[in-house]
Amino acid sequence: MSNEILEMIEEKKYTRLRKQLTEMNPADIAGIFEELSPKDLPIIFRILPKELAAETFVEMDSDMQQQLLEGFSDKEIRDVMDELFMDDTVDIIDEMPATVAKRILKQTDATTRKLINKLLAYPDDSAGSIMTTEYIDLKKDMTVDEAFDRIRFLGVDTESIYTCYVTDKSRRLLGVVTVKELLLNPKDMVIGKIMRENIIFANTFDDKEEVAGQFRKYDLVMLPVVDKEERLVGIVTVDDAIDVIEEEATEDIEKMAAIVPTEKSYFKAGVFDTFKSRIPWLMLLMISATFTGAIISSFESKLTVFPALIAFIPMLMDTAGNCGSQSSVTVIRGISLGDIEFKDIFRVLWKEIRVAVCCSVALAAVNFLKLWIIDYMIFGNFDSGKQFAEIAVVCLTMMLTVIAAKIVGCVLPVLAKKIGFDPAVMASPFITTIVDAIALVIYFNFAVLMLGI
Amino acid sequence: MSNEILEMIEEKKYTRLRKQLTEMNPADIAGIFEELSPKDLPIIFRILPKELAAETFVEMDSDMQQQLLEGFSDKEIRDVMDELFMDDTVDIIDEMPATVAKRILKQTDATTRKLINKLLAYPDDSAGSIMTTEYIDLKKDMTVDEAFDRIRFLGVDTESIYTCYVTDKSRRLLGVVTVKELLLNPKDMVIGKIMRENIIFANTFDDKEEVAGQFRKYDLVMLPVVDKEERLVGIVTVDDAIDVIEEEATEDIEKMAAIVPTEKSYFKAGVFDTFKSRIPWLMLLMISATFTGAIISSFESKLTVFPALIAFIPMLMDTAGNCGSQSSVTVIRGISLGDIEFKDIFRVLWKEIRVAVCCSVALAAVNFLKLWIIDYMIFGNFDSGKQFAEIAVVCLTMMLTVIAAKIVGCVLPVLAKKIGFDPAVMASPFITTIVDAIALVIYFNFAVLMLGI
Repeated sequence: MSNEILEMIEEKKYTRLRKQLTEMNPADIAGIFEELSPKDLPIIFRILPKELAAETFVEMDSDMQQQLLEGFSDKEIRDVMDELFMDDTVDIIDEMPATVAKRILKQTDATTRKLINKLLAYPDDSAGSIMTTEYIDLKKDMTVDEAFDRIRFLGVDTESIYTCYVTDKSRRLLGVVTVKELLLNPKDMVIGKIMRENIIFANTFDDKEEVAGQFRKYDLVMLPVVDKEERLVGIVTVDDAIDVIEEEATEDIEKMAAIVPTEKSYFKAGVFDTFKSRIPWLMLLMISATFTGAIISSFESKLTVFPALIAFIPMLMDTAGNCGSQSSVTVIRGISLGDIEFKDIFRVLWKEIRVAVCCSVALAAVNFLKLWIIDYMIFGNFDSGKQFAEIAVVCLTMMLTVIAAKIVGCVLPVLAKKIGFDPAVMASPFITTIVDAIALVIYFNFAVLMLGI
Repeated sequence: MSNEILEMIEEKKYTRLRKQLTEMNPADIAGIFEELSPKDLPIIFRILPKELAAETFVEMDSDMQQQLLEGFSDKEIRDVMDELFMDDTVDIIDEMPATVAKRILKQTDATTRKLINKLLAYPDDSAGSIMTTEYIDLKKDMTVDEAFDRIRFLGVDTESIYTCYVTDKSRRLLGVVTVKELLLNPKDMVIGKIMRENIIFANTFDDKEEVAGQFRKYDLVMLPVVDKEERLVGIVTVDDAIDVIEEEATEDIEKMAAIVPTEKSYFKAGVFDTFKSRIPWLMLLMISATFTGAIISSFESKLTVFPALIAFIPMLMDTAGNCGSQSSVTVIRGISLGDIEFKDIFRVLWKEIRVAVCCSVALAAVNFLKLWIIDYMIFGNFDSGKQFAEIAVVCLTMMLTVIAAKIVGCVLPVLAKKIGFDPAVMASPFITTIVDAIALVIYFNFAVLMLGI
């Protein structure tokens, strides 16, 4: 498909191309446009019919949008912007450099410009930043027939017409009625009698992740947004909620891997962007790992007496790190999805301790068998004559470390959330550093105690 | 709110309670029901009006559902099941023990039972397993008015009425028309003239994660599902797609943290469930870490000559692990979201190498300054007289390790995907073990080379 189209472009078969593109989905057209040269892009874009052009424009990434906008005449900017929904317009302006943004704003009328500026002012993580202002508003005393007239009148320009909001004179939200309910009621029925007054809504300054959570919880397709005076100012649609859910998951995953989250997709982020998002945590964790090194240094002279002990350091540290990150990641995800709250801290702790005891016994047992049968009986390692004590030190350290790692791993994210930190930042690498230190301290203390060094 | 209701239950004020509950959302009612005792639950559930009862039933977790079903009379089972959508019925039956499932099936008529069994047979990860069979189907030669009649006729029972599917006599999918388009067209217009024929659809055996990806890409609210003969058999709705997106992210996160994914939420999974999901990877990674230990063992005698080298092991291993997991996690998420494919492997590699070089220079430089100024000049460590060589060994190892870790981290997930493994399984802990070994081999070889041991 895509190859066929690229061929048509090369052979300049524009009439056939236009026909072909018209039958395609905007998201797919945008995908094909990504492969075009900067020279071809504006030419092919102008082939599209007006409405499809605008829909495709929304699906492009901001670099391509900027490239097109810079080549557009004022009229072309107006043509595209006229077809867009308010939330898409605001997103595009937000991404553009100041000069391009100014040019776009100049092409809008004063009312729209005022609205855009108001929407731009909402914080990035608020419901206001993802809402659109096109929705169907009805009045309580309209009949079903009048409601349909209003839907037909507003219809063409709204992103979703199937849920209508009933407002009073001062635009306060009174109720909600769906097109389904309108269709199932007689034409002269009054809206006030069929509307539902028990409405789920958000406030403009609500966290957008919480808003997305409401879509998940209540299986919504749209959610009305009201301002401080409870006046209806916009709606959030499910496609934007899905984007927020996606971004949220990606952000959590990045933070868990010690990456400073970026909004750009993998190839869009430049080498330096990626470097900047990775180096802070690498630096911090490298420096904190020197403390682990310092713990080893302080036992250096004792380690040279039992050099076999050195070989177990990676295994003990790695297992501690893995145990800690399993617990922390599970708890962090539970917090994100709303399953775990601060008040659950003791329930979490109690569960993790029991799981940790099971894990520690299993791991220590396997470790003991391996050391005893393979290392001692078959290969005859541990020639110090203190083989029992050495094996005991390793196995006991393993047990205590696993339990400590799981406790640290589950408690830190919950505490972080409580004091207002992002729990995801408490994940694997950070916890690994802490439990590494714990593992070594336990190990060396057991060694001193049981081997008498 | 919830306290007030629990009070009413205690005081048996059932009339007021019924009124209060009727105004609430099913998801919230289910939340309150979770706090009820097993004795109260069936009593309060029976207070709800029939439709609300069914909607609340769907929102409960399967333990509560089972508890209620076991106490239900046959008629009560029929009442609840009659109100449910087909996808919810199938989900519930799927979760119940055989005896309960049998009782439910006995209460349905032969046609429904046949349909349920067919839906139950779809693989767990297929589009068929998340679709519902309630949708509006129209014929090409109907008028807009006739279409509305059919919507009114089918309307009450369908999960979403706003997108109607046009099928031919053998139920093959011909086109799609929305209620919005119906409303904006004259009443005598023929459906065949206004339907769109360019339809995005899924096949019953398509992977449900890919189906969810289509909702994201094309901003869909519904997606038709066809069988091998291209006959329309069901639809997937956006709320189910959101659930799949959520589950997918949770699964990826769990795999990245070396946890075998479970479908249960944190507190629903028992201690032994959680133990079972964590111990396989812990065991595997513990055993693989003994290889890292073996590398150290083989250099044991040389390490005792320069014991200061031991102290750098945690820092080098941790940094390698962090670098590797940053790359792997970024690439795995890119694969999940469809940004990265196998053909991109060299682009990924080229980007990671450049990022790695930047990171390695920055980390080695900071490390050099720390070792030179703090450790050597201020504290006077490195009394071996080979301080330059020792510092050089550490810094060069750091540089090479960072680059190696990032290469391994980005290549393994892409290769895993190519050969049909799950890329997420290649994440942090697995890659950590590999890059730990690489870090040590590089470190000891540099040490032998530059310190002449």
